[in-house]
Amino acid sequence: MTAGILDGKALAVSLQTALKREIDDIRQQSGAIPVFANIVVGHDAGAASYAKSQQRTAEALGIDFRFLHLAATATQQELTEQIALLNNDRSVHGIMLHKPLPEHIDFQAAVNAISVHKDLEGMNVTNLGEMFLGNFHTVPCTPAAVMALLASSGIDPAGKDAVIVGRSEIVGKPLIHLLLQKNCTVSVCHSATSKAGRLAEHISRADILVAALGRPGLIRGEWVQPGAVVIDVGINSVAGKITGDVEFASAAERAAFITPVPGGVGPVTAVCLMKNGVELFKRQIGLGV
Amino acid sequence: MTAGILDGKALAVSLQTALKREIDDIRQQSGAIPVFANIVVGHDAGAASYAKSQQRTAEALGIDFRFLHLAATATQQELTEQIALLNNDRSVHGIMLHKPLPEHIDFQAAVNAISVHKDLEGMNVTNLGEMFLGNFHTVPCTPAAVMALLASSGIDPAGKDAVIVGRSEIVGKPLIHLLLQKNCTVSVCHSATSKAGRLAEHISRADILVAALGRPGLIRGEWVQPGAVVIDVGINSVAGKITGDVEFASAAERAAFITPVPGGVGPVTAVCLMKNGVELFKRQIGLGV
Repeated sequence: MTAGILDGKALAVSLQTALKREIDDIRQQSGAIPVFANIVVGHDAGAASYAKSQQRTAEALGIDFRFLHLAATATQQELTEQIALLNNDRSVHGIMLHKPLPEHIDFQAAVNAISVHKDLEGMNVTNLGEMFLGNFHTVPCTPAAVMALLASSGIDPAGKDAVIVGRSEIVGKPLIHLLLQKNCTVSVCHSATSKAGRLAEHISRADILVAALGRPGLIRGEWVQPGAVVIDVGINSVAGKITGDVEFASAAERAAFITPVPGGVGPVTAVCLMKNGVELFKRQIGLGV
Repeated sequence: MTAGILDGKALAVSLQTALKREIDDIRQQSGAIPVFANIVVGHDAGAASYAKSQQRTAEALGIDFRFLHLAATATQQELTEQIALLNNDRSVHGIMLHKPLPEHIDFQAAVNAISVHKDLEGMNVTNLGEMFLGNFHTVPCTPAAVMALLASSGIDPAGKDAVIVGRSEIVGKPLIHLLLQKNCTVSVCHSATSKAGRLAEHISRADILVAALGRPGLIRGEWVQPGAVVIDVGINSVAGKITGDVEFASAAERAAFITPVPGGVGPVTAVCLMKNGVELFKRQIGLGV
């Protein structure tokens, strides 16, 4: 068997086209456009280039994507004050914190200060609690991208065994709740599973495998169940090349569908952030639910 | 093999003894005693008897356990106003909502109105979000009781396969996060697992099995892995007898440890509620973390 490729670039383009149409329609009807603020504390060359690319994506969609720069010496209190100003600014619909933040800044405390109505990344503690309760108001972008790619495979997830490798707050844990909502039986593996020598046996029974541990080639192709859907969230730099958590070539021989790295989850994630923001925008201007 | 019994009554007594000593010490040193308010809306005979038993447990510990009765016709708004008064009342340290509530009351909206500092049951959306983030400030009582019983078995959960049957907000979902924190590989089964005919295979690989679906005898003893720890959260009434989700006799022949029903999770849950409240009390009077 040779797997069908879940092409993240193509999916991103189609999602972007639909999103642009939606934004255009709203602008024509109401004159309103979405405005997002990205708060950058200090300077990081790699991050700056990523932020520029986000801005280009946003502007191509008709979104006003602004940066608010704070000095690397800004305190948590100063950051919280800036967030409060943006929370109260009715002309701004979405707020995010650019990473990395300086070490003296507590990311979670800062994101908790963002109004749940403007939390672009869906990482506010109240939003996470809502997700726990099954209310998916704003889904963190990477898990949202995983679910979009899974949907694009056409496979019905209900009753299937989904195995998530990785338990981060930003990928693995939201996916537990998203996959449970789709009626998957969900298993979560992590470093302690690997240490116990049990990773292969869990992976070999996965109908849907999501790899999100960030260890290049950790998951061997021979472990993959024939016919599985494999979604690789890993983005690892190895000898100057970007590679995933799954051994791609051997896994693709067994899987029914697989995402490439790069060109899989990454491009879809960027669009999911914008989709989140447009939903927040619509609610704030009185459209949508 | 005949399983060791995880005796919930005995564990409850030992937890209660330690808790009473703690409350006594605080009272002797500071004169302060914990005060909890249980809001009852309308009247339900079964619930009233349970509430009375809770009150007896509390008073035996030296806790002032009060009822606030609202009429069955009380609106959501009136309930929220009463909660706000209790939130602002410095003499009250813990607040809970008695169930069942009349159908016109939204439980989650009401519990979200309880200050996170006074949320006895740990079901406030912010508290659930904190749990998602790995911060276990107030753990809902039934999952807390499961973890206490598991600890009493002496088994180290790290690297073990834990299988939870049931995905409710109040039991199954908190347990995912609690067992992940203990470094278990965690799987969640539910009605769709059963419908897909895969429940037996998941149960048979569980080192730690938590049954919380509320279907009497759903889990057959022959499915249990020899040497497993079996914790049965089910409380089902069958022909006037209380029975769990697991076939006890046949499961006990295979398991290393098992909880009886009744006399397992139930008695420990009642103490865990009081323990939660005492932690809230300590923080409010400036003791503890």
